[in-house]
Amino acid sequence: MLPRSRAECLERDRADPLAACRTWFRLPSDVIYLDGNSLGALTLAAERRVTTVMNEQWGVDLIRSWSDNGWLDYPARLGDRIARLLGAARGEVLVCDSTSVDLFKLASAVAVQRGSRRKIVTELGNFPTDLYILRGLARLVPDLDVIAVPRESVATAIDRETLLVVLTHVHYRTAEMYDLEAMTKHAHSVGARVIWDLSHSTGAVPLDLNGAGADFAVGCTYKYLNGGPGAPGFLYVRRDLQAALEPVLSGWLGDARPFDFLDDYVPAAGIDRHRCGTPPVLAYAALEGALDVFDDVDLAQIRRKSIELMQLFIDLVEALPMASSLQLVSPRSPEQRGSHLSFAHANASAVMQRLIKRGVIGDFRAPDLLRFGFTPLYLRFVDVWDAVHILAEELD
Amino acid sequence: MLPRSRAECLERDRADPLAACRTWFRLPSDVIYLDGNSLGALTLAAERRVTTVMNEQWGVDLIRSWSDNGWLDYPARLGDRIARLLGAARGEVLVCDSTSVDLFKLASAVAVQRGSRRKIVTELGNFPTDLYILRGLARLVPDLDVIAVPRESVATAIDRETLLVVLTHVHYRTAEMYDLEAMTKHAHSVGARVIWDLSHSTGAVPLDLNGAGADFAVGCTYKYLNGGPGAPGFLYVRRDLQAALEPVLSGWLGDARPFDFLDDYVPAAGIDRHRCGTPPVLAYAALEGALDVFDDVDLAQIRRKSIELMQLFIDLVEALPMASSLQLVSPRSPEQRGSHLSFAHANASAVMQRLIKRGVIGDFRAPDLLRFGFTPLYLRFVDVWDAVHILAEELD
Repeated sequence: MLPRSRAECLERDRADPLAACRTWFRLPSDVIYLDGNSLGALTLAAERRVTTVMNEQWGVDLIRSWSDNGWLDYPARLGDRIARLLGAARGEVLVCDSTSVDLFKLASAVAVQRGSRRKIVTELGNFPTDLYILRGLARLVPDLDVIAVPRESVATAIDRETLLVVLTHVHYRTAEMYDLEAMTKHAHSVGARVIWDLSHSTGAVPLDLNGAGADFAVGCTYKYLNGGPGAPGFLYVRRDLQAALEPVLSGWLGDARPFDFLDDYVPAAGIDRHRCGTPPVLAYAALEGALDVFDDVDLAQIRRKSIELMQLFIDLVEALPMASSLQLVSPRSPEQRGSHLSFAHANASAVMQRLIKRGVIGDFRAPDLLRFGFTPLYLRFVDVWDAVHILAEELD
Repeated sequence: MLPRSRAECLERDRADPLAACRTWFRLPSDVIYLDGNSLGALTLAAERRVTTVMNEQWGVDLIRSWSDNGWLDYPARLGDRIARLLGAARGEVLVCDSTSVDLFKLASAVAVQRGSRRKIVTELGNFPTDLYILRGLARLVPDLDVIAVPRESVATAIDRETLLVVLTHVHYRTAEMYDLEAMTKHAHSVGARVIWDLSHSTGAVPLDLNGAGADFAVGCTYKYLNGGPGAPGFLYVRRDLQAALEPVLSGWLGDARPFDFLDDYVPAAGIDRHRCGTPPVLAYAALEGALDVFDDVDLAQIRRKSIELMQLFIDLVEALPMASSLQLVSPRSPEQRGSHLSFAHANASAVMQRLIKRGVIGDFRAPDLLRFGFTPLYLRFVDVWDAVHILAEELD
């Protein structure tokens, strides 16, 4: 049963098994933060870790830190910590570059092996970087054909000429969620591979990449993982596909023996070959701290609370006198969506600006969406209650 | 006149117009740091800036910081600050990604326009990432031909079939420095373009990209610019070449209107089109602070002191009783080298390990090089004196 009064919300928060997680975060007291799906909040652990890495490691140990303080291993080490949240194995995930660059890395490496297949199938209206990156690749390799179709046509567009399918698991606007396993199997049935973009899923939705037989994935660590603004992306390559996938973005740290400085590149064994340049250590330090909070929770708990928070939000919004001015564009069924909700409103931009002034931080997505993210590690039921009441006042 | 005793070194340090710059840095008292050419030291300003951006901006202002705290403009804003050090104009430099990715960005964008030219000429034995990246590009675009030749054959390898020349201005091992303007003019004379890798030059050697008519450049900010471990790279595109150069790594933040989230990519005007994914803000914050110290010095001063420090080091080393075991492999003439010195020694790896134990931090480059970097902003003449005396003890 969802709470039906503010007092019941407070009661529910007291009984919440994730309630203590909020103490890990630095959150301003005058803010209800419904934008953790865009930029996760700062954790005390991230702050401590950045301070230590900056002042004690960079400041004192200097260059020796690359080996002595584990800087060099950051991409694979943090990849292993994220793997657990993806249902991937150790050695299958690498934290590196940005999500956009990571997508280019995987798509270009697959493109080299294209054989007679020429099509890359993807979705119109998705977060645009995925489409832009694929079309950029096709400018360089003109015999590749990027087939971008509306969501409802994606499945039928995947055929025996399809080399690669690139889809975002949870849609950035609507939060609609693909059946990752079913779509992967569908693509495999015609011999195509899939790159899943998990930017809006990771840390919010339980994932089972290995169980689903997923080939490749990329994703983002600055949303639900709270890795910090512009924190590095990650990429996943299923173990049995790793040996054959040679990077196009072959930088020195992806070489098997980078400190031999040889003229001939030999890709490193395993996921490390997808490293490229020197990793931004301070950004990894923040992510390293941010991941600590995930060590003691499981994603099923997070998911359960996320669904409850969203259901409470929907129920409260739809009980408002002015409910008819807001239209839920996210799927009503929780199984079909990620961890954010979007509502269409004729005056969405102005409404969001007023909400932000009142400390209720969501975001506006043109032309008419109010988008609210639900981050169970630090969001309380009472926050949802208060946010909807402030929304009601601002709509009034 | 160079000092000839420790007392004269101390005297020289007192008279050094750059002496006060050392107070900007956090340096451990038991270290003589001769590796700022690999990882620059931490400045107090970088530390302060990271702390502010992390705690006050990320922690409190959260998502609003992208607009309110100027996060979104970091790549071009810091690019403009670096431009002055390169002899480039505002709007010609962008701080983004890593040097390796930036090289791929420029080379791939040029490759799209290749017309009938097919050759990319570069140098064997250079820092390997440049060669690896170009060959990776050629794996994807097989009609490109990477011609990698020894240094002495580079000039003659550049011909009318050459699309692009990729050279590193200052060599990472020997510090040998190309005549940037002469080589650029030579490439232009046969209709080729040049990408200069300025990783070992930027912040150490005065540069005049505009004066030399340079086309493109990439570089590193974590060496002489002290931007922090793995700090973002930069890229330079001469103004008149910008409009025609469309990115292949076309990420959402390089679009003209990224927050309209449109399906069709339209490259942003100017250098911003080479942005790709979301920038790692904490890494930019460190670089932002680190650049402050350059505001009040000019590179001619830095260069003058660098040459004096290196000459003192050479003179002292070559006066040692065991001087014959060390062979200077860097050019003897200061005009022909950057800001580091390499000496070959039969037992270089072990010698460097012993030096590092004594607090004299340089680095070893296989198979037989002792490499020492000279960073005039925080290195003193007395440091050079002491370093050579410790080296003598360890060689003995």
